[in-house]
Amino acid sequence: MEVQDADLKVKTLSPELLRKMDAYWHAANYLSVGQIYLYGNPLLKEKLTLEHIKPRLLGHWGTTPGLNFIYVHLNRVIKQYDLNIIYVTGPGHGGPGLVANTYLEGTYSEVYPDIGEDENGMQKLFKQFSFPGGIPSHVAPETPGSINEGGELGYSLVHAFGAVFDNPYLIAACVVGDGEAETGALATSWHSNKFLNPVHDGAVLPILHLNGYKIANPTILARIPKEELEQLFRGHGYNPYFVEGDDPDTMHELLAATLDIVVEEIRAIQSDARVYGFKKRPIWPMIIFRTPKGWTGPKVVDGLQIEGTWRAHQVPLAELATKPEHVQMLETWMKSYKPELLFDENGKLIPELAELAPKENRRMGANPSANGGSLLINLKMPDFKDHAVAVPTPGNITAEATSVMGEFLKDVMKANWHERNFRIFGPDETASNRLSHLFDITGRTSTAEIFEGDNHLSPDGRVMEVLSEHLCQGWLEGYLLTGRHGLFSCYEAFIHIVDSMFNQHAKWLKVSRKLPWRKPIASLNYLLTSHVWRQDHNGNSHQDPGFLDVVANKTAEIVRIYLPPDANTLLSVTDHCLRSRDYINVIVAGKQPEMQWLDMDAAIKHCTAGLGIWKWASNDEGFEPDVVMACAGDVPTLETIAAVQILREQLPELKVRVINVVDLMTLQPESEHPHGLNDKDFDILFTKDKPIIFAFHGYPLLIHRLTYRRTNHKNLHVRGYKGEGTTTTPFDMVVLNDLDRFHLVSDVIDRLPGLGAKGAYTKQYLRDKLLDHKAYIESHGEDMPEILNWKWNLSPSTNLV
Amino acid sequence: MEVQDADLKVKTLSPELLRKMDAYWHAANYLSVGQIYLYGNPLLKEKLTLEHIKPRLLGHWGTTPGLNFIYVHLNRVIKQYDLNIIYVTGPGHGGPGLVANTYLEGTYSEVYPDIGEDENGMQKLFKQFSFPGGIPSHVAPETPGSINEGGELGYSLVHAFGAVFDNPYLIAACVVGDGEAETGALATSWHSNKFLNPVHDGAVLPILHLNGYKIANPTILARIPKEELEQLFRGHGYNPYFVEGDDPDTMHELLAATLDIVVEEIRAIQSDARVYGFKKRPIWPMIIFRTPKGWTGPKVVDGLQIEGTWRAHQVPLAELATKPEHVQMLETWMKSYKPELLFDENGKLIPELAELAPKENRRMGANPSANGGSLLINLKMPDFKDHAVAVPTPGNITAEATSVMGEFLKDVMKANWHERNFRIFGPDETASNRLSHLFDITGRTSTAEIFEGDNHLSPDGRVMEVLSEHLCQGWLEGYLLTGRHGLFSCYEAFIHIVDSMFNQHAKWLKVSRKLPWRKPIASLNYLLTSHVWRQDHNGNSHQDPGFLDVVANKTAEIVRIYLPPDANTLLSVTDHCLRSRDYINVIVAGKQPEMQWLDMDAAIKHCTAGLGIWKWASNDEGFEPDVVMACAGDVPTLETIAAVQILREQLPELKVRVINVVDLMTLQPESEHPHGLNDKDFDILFTKDKPIIFAFHGYPLLIHRLTYRRTNHKNLHVRGYKGEGTTTTPFDMVVLNDLDRFHLVSDVIDRLPGLGAKGAYTKQYLRDKLLDHKAYIESHGEDMPEILNWKWNLSPSTNLV
Repeated sequence: MEVQDADLKVKTLSPELLRKMDAYWHAANYLSVGQIYLYGNPLLKEKLTLEHIKPRLLGHWGTTPGLNFIYVHLNRVIKQYDLNIIYVTGPGHGGPGLVANTYLEGTYSEVYPDIGEDENGMQKLFKQFSFPGGIPSHVAPETPGSINEGGELGYSLVHAFGAVFDNPYLIAACVVGDGEAETGALATSWHSNKFLNPVHDGAVLPILHLNGYKIANPTILARIPKEELEQLFRGHGYNPYFVEGDDPDTMHELLAATLDIVVEEIRAIQSDARVYGFKKRPIWPMIIFRTPKGWTGPKVVDGLQIEGTWRAHQVPLAELATKPEHVQMLETWMKSYKPELLFDENGKLIPELAELAPKENRRMGANPSANGGSLLINLKMPDFKDHAVAVPTPGNITAEATSVMGEFLKDVMKANWHERNFRIFGPDETASNRLSHLFDITGRTSTAEIFEGDNHLSPDGRVMEVLSEHLCQGWLEGYLLTGRHGLFSCYEAFIHIVDSMFNQHAKWLKVSRKLPWRKPIASLNYLLTSHVWRQDHNGNSHQDPGFLDVVANKTAEIVRIYLPPDANTLLSVTDHCLRSRDYINVIVAGKQPEMQWLDMDAAIKHCTAGLGIWKWASNDEGFEPDVVMACAGDVPTLETIAAVQILREQLPELKVRVINVVDLMTLQPESEHPHGLNDKDFDILFTKDKPIIFAFHGYPLLIHRLTYRRTNHKNLHVRGYKGEGTTTTPFDMVVLNDLDRFHLVSDVIDRLPGLGAKGAYTKQYLRDKLLDHKAYIESHGEDMPEILNWKWNLSPSTNLV
Repeated sequence: MEVQDADLKVKTLSPELLRKMDAYWHAANYLSVGQIYLYGNPLLKEKLTLEHIKPRLLGHWGTTPGLNFIYVHLNRVIKQYDLNIIYVTGPGHGGPGLVANTYLEGTYSEVYPDIGEDENGMQKLFKQFSFPGGIPSHVAPETPGSINEGGELGYSLVHAFGAVFDNPYLIAACVVGDGEAETGALATSWHSNKFLNPVHDGAVLPILHLNGYKIANPTILARIPKEELEQLFRGHGYNPYFVEGDDPDTMHELLAATLDIVVEEIRAIQSDARVYGFKKRPIWPMIIFRTPKGWTGPKVVDGLQIEGTWRAHQVPLAELATKPEHVQMLETWMKSYKPELLFDENGKLIPELAELAPKENRRMGANPSANGGSLLINLKMPDFKDHAVAVPTPGNITAEATSVMGEFLKDVMKANWHERNFRIFGPDETASNRLSHLFDITGRTSTAEIFEGDNHLSPDGRVMEVLSEHLCQGWLEGYLLTGRHGLFSCYEAFIHIVDSMFNQHAKWLKVSRKLPWRKPIASLNYLLTSHVWRQDHNGNSHQDPGFLDVVANKTAEIVRIYLPPDANTLLSVTDHCLRSRDYINVIVAGKQPEMQWLDMDAAIKHCTAGLGIWKWASNDEGFEPDVVMACAGDVPTLETIAAVQILREQLPELKVRVINVVDLMTLQPESEHPHGLNDKDFDILFTKDKPIIFAFHGYPLLIHRLTYRRTNHKNLHVRGYKGEGTTTTPFDMVVLNDLDRFHLVSDVIDRLPGLGAKGAYTKQYLRDKLLDHKAYIESHGEDMPEILNWKWNLSPSTNLV
């Protein structure tokens, strides 16, 4: 659809308002150019010389004037209709524009009082941009009003949708760059409208900013016929409005008229749904905004076309030190905005322009939704102990850990039902991951067509399932960044799909934690299940525990990794994670029925410590152990306990200490991570010189890199995933990676040469067991009865010491 | 567009052919069900009992009958038009279908002679599926005819396009699952048609398999109105044909008629372009194939609808051990395909059906393009030494390493011009990454609209740029897997976007290397540039060297990591990587002008060894050093050499050994990686007890995890990226992470207490330098002149020993 200027019977903007808005846009453009170029002479009161200009010119001009244009127009509709809008900046390289606009509206000086609304403040504003000790060149946590870092492209639209779920009065105006539109994450984000319910969610207004070029090339969407472009967005379920041109006055009229129509459409959709209830997925409006790249900047430099080409991407005038005429061109360019008509003598925006901005929290830079911590309401936490699995003695009963967790999550969902501030996200695997208790009280979200017989599918569902880890992650990030709570449950191997989004969120938290005005937000919680050791049925492609390595690279202030060995520890860890702030918590837990070890009291104590000796599994009390058997993760714990049992039977004189690690970061030195155990206690637990056989859930090297500074590291032998796996039996998976009970016992014997013949005899016994195993599975296709029906025998009375 | 059965004036298929094709489909379905369920009684000659049935039922039935249906129909058009088609299976969970079809056409028994075309072979075929020691449940490297692992969804379409670039006579029929269509990678893959040139590329025929459901839920595309669906694909630039229904006979007619039309369209597009040249991007046909999930399987089980619902996703009958009636239902189901009419007494497909399959290499399981190594032609390699940078003495001149590499890549492109088997891939950064010499001879690929003034943009370009790392990676994978060569150049931080694709390709290589019939393919080569240390202008979001950690987790047979310190070493490494097979080579190299160290002879020697002492930088000759200064990566090398120079000036009596590491895997023990240095040589190089200060490009822990078993690991102190960074100066980036020359010298002093007062004096000098630095950049915004114009002074005569 297109609003033609000629068709507008009544102009939307009075000539006076148009003139002012254009002037306001000039002011934003002026401040944007100033940030990129100047560190002195901010109002150009003196003749511009090289010494006013930064030696390193860093920033992206190309997208900025368009971003500024949209900002000014959103300001108008916010004021006119009293709208609650946040501005999500996909082309976040246009950082100067957002800084400029939040400065013009007054937010910037409130947040950063040393950057005042005067000449001195403007000088500081200019200097700090992309300057050592200053602010980044992109839209970033430091930018008021932002929930989206604009460096790694592709996540704006998914963040915008995450922001408006359960935020009925919020509109996320999301500028999507035509460059970022080529990314996978963005390409699938358009489908988020099939999950948005106008009754209780807000609205996203996508504005595709078609300025035609990336760094060196046109964008795809700028080079397909308009008809295809329109079909593409209609096919995605939107009603696209085209706003295209390069004449500012005409464009002001077009965008203003279009925004009026679009706001009306959004309001009509919402009021209809809120009065009459949800009937069918609405066709939401969107805007396709086509303007020249580097609009209003230098048209031609050194004989080359700049405005409207890829050459406008970064700094249009770059060689100021060597080309004096470029300094002159810069001055001409900046003066073309007529700063003397925009700012008073002291550098303050003149009142008739200042009044164009909304007031207080309606300013997009000050919108509380973009500083989610300021709106955060603590989750009401039901008592997780209500779901305790009764564990009379260790190794006595089995349970499905994530199923128990699902009961608890259901209670959390219920307790916060009326706040509507808790959602679960995952790629079509909530039930497969055994969290289906949630479906007792809510459904999976869908506003697309629903058929009879669909499985807990509802436009009101609070479980967000879509076969895109990008969407799950991005929605959750947007939801958290606007002050709510959630959890992402994912097949362990496929969480690597969002490694990069995880990285960027961790970077965001690292910076935002240091900004006093950004209030803490709820942690990003992952449940990684259907994990490497129980993907024996899907095989190789589904087996990868390497996300933990990506996580462990991130700053210790932010990341937490938990490997609860059973259901009660999982409950305790989950409770802790849901209450925490500003972290990324990774919980790894299996979904299959597994043996249970700790009753609830023991589980809480164990999780609080993060690691500890399991006395009931050890037989070294009062002695120095001969060997330490450490474990982290449910399957490695199972194999370790089974190995200990074999040791008791075969080599009863051996003194074995069993240590289980729930909180992986306890292994790091205290100096490296706040959860790190101090060296003294570590030495007491792990001894200074006894062999340690460590059975680990993930890649063994992770344990080495966490512990390499510990006294006894030289005696540490780690078993874990070494890349072996296929479609096979569950026990064969651990055998293939030498993590099984037989290999673990063999590892102990190898490190205790003093066992002599007895050790050799036992090793033969273990080899035979492994041969039995191999022969059995290859003929029967399932694990041998000895493993399937393992006779646990761990009551204290069997402690032979 | 839709071909209505009623409209078909002349039936495409004779009644006889229709009957046979339907029977062939039955045979494929029968073999598929057999694989999932049986390990005995393959022809159901006996009454089916529990003992014929596998104890663990693993596999995905839901998508399989649709895949089989399409396979049979593609067989027909291959024969009829003598087409060269490969079958790319997006819903790769439907592994049994592809195994069944390649078995029916005879390929399977040729590749795996122990699985013969008789009852015994069929029994083995059934048993091995998802069975210990057998084959995976998904389409996998083990599956003849496949170039796409179907476990992690989303990459089928991008692989298909990669396969047909420069493959003018190949058609990749790509079945896209409606589940995987929700992923980001797949969503943006549709745009690949803007890069496909019908003159010299083949064709992709996307077949969207709309069977409606994922594990537990409908898919998005199955629940939007047909009008939107059609607009979506028209918007993506395709001409969609709908083939929808559940009556097999009608569907046979519809698909056959549609395929005839579609093949005609493809041929018309190609012959027009090949006769008259490329004029504009064609609108390629595609098929939307809507059939019931679990088609022809059990309709209702235990009162619940199965066929046509999400319940058909995996095994429709699962509780055979406890429900005898399910065994009966399974027998009824399998017998509904009438195996006795399909296979002869001995279990061989009857001749009238066998003749439906194409012959020899036209069989999709035997198509050489799906075993790319069999078609691989060695690259003609020009002499990289022709591009040697003259380095009369170390530390004397600067060069842009990647720019020199670009000259070499240009030569490679030129030398293989007529083979058309080499392409460069990257997200719009080829020029930014300084590889622009390539544009002397070729352009960036685009078949979308091209304007005057566009920058080296051409439908014939051999540099593939798109702002989607997923597309770059996936196209290159498809290109390599079909027997060609290439390189992916990427901003270092954003390569994390494809971590998961890297993982899956590494898994593919690990398995395929062990299959004798799969011939080695060209390695997947990454150039990671615009790296962490020179993203000072883009800041925090662009800084992350963690991909190396992901890579280092993968099996040593596959992965190689190179950190050439300058241009000549980069040339040598590049030459090596382009010649290699079946590896993933990661090269990290900066694009900025940096100091050069080695002349070409020295560079070749150094790269061949992988690491070595730089004698010209060391002063320990004939002595045991006091300290070892090790470095890996261009910027760390620069800082190390500068630190050594400071040491010579400030503490000339100190004996310093400098070791540079190009091939990171040399650090691992010999037992862990084929490139690993043996312990003896390692001890000689790094000493057994002297402090080692290691300046590393990436996260320091990676060096620890590679070296923790080395004798002198306890004295190893690593500096690297610790997560600090923003928009600042280049030198400040290293200072923020304690990797700068001043910190490195300080680290040396800290480890040599014997230096006493002299050491303390020098430390004060270093602290002052760092304060100077900080003060200077905060007022000037660029690095202090002392750093910018560092006086290198490394000629042998300055060696003060």
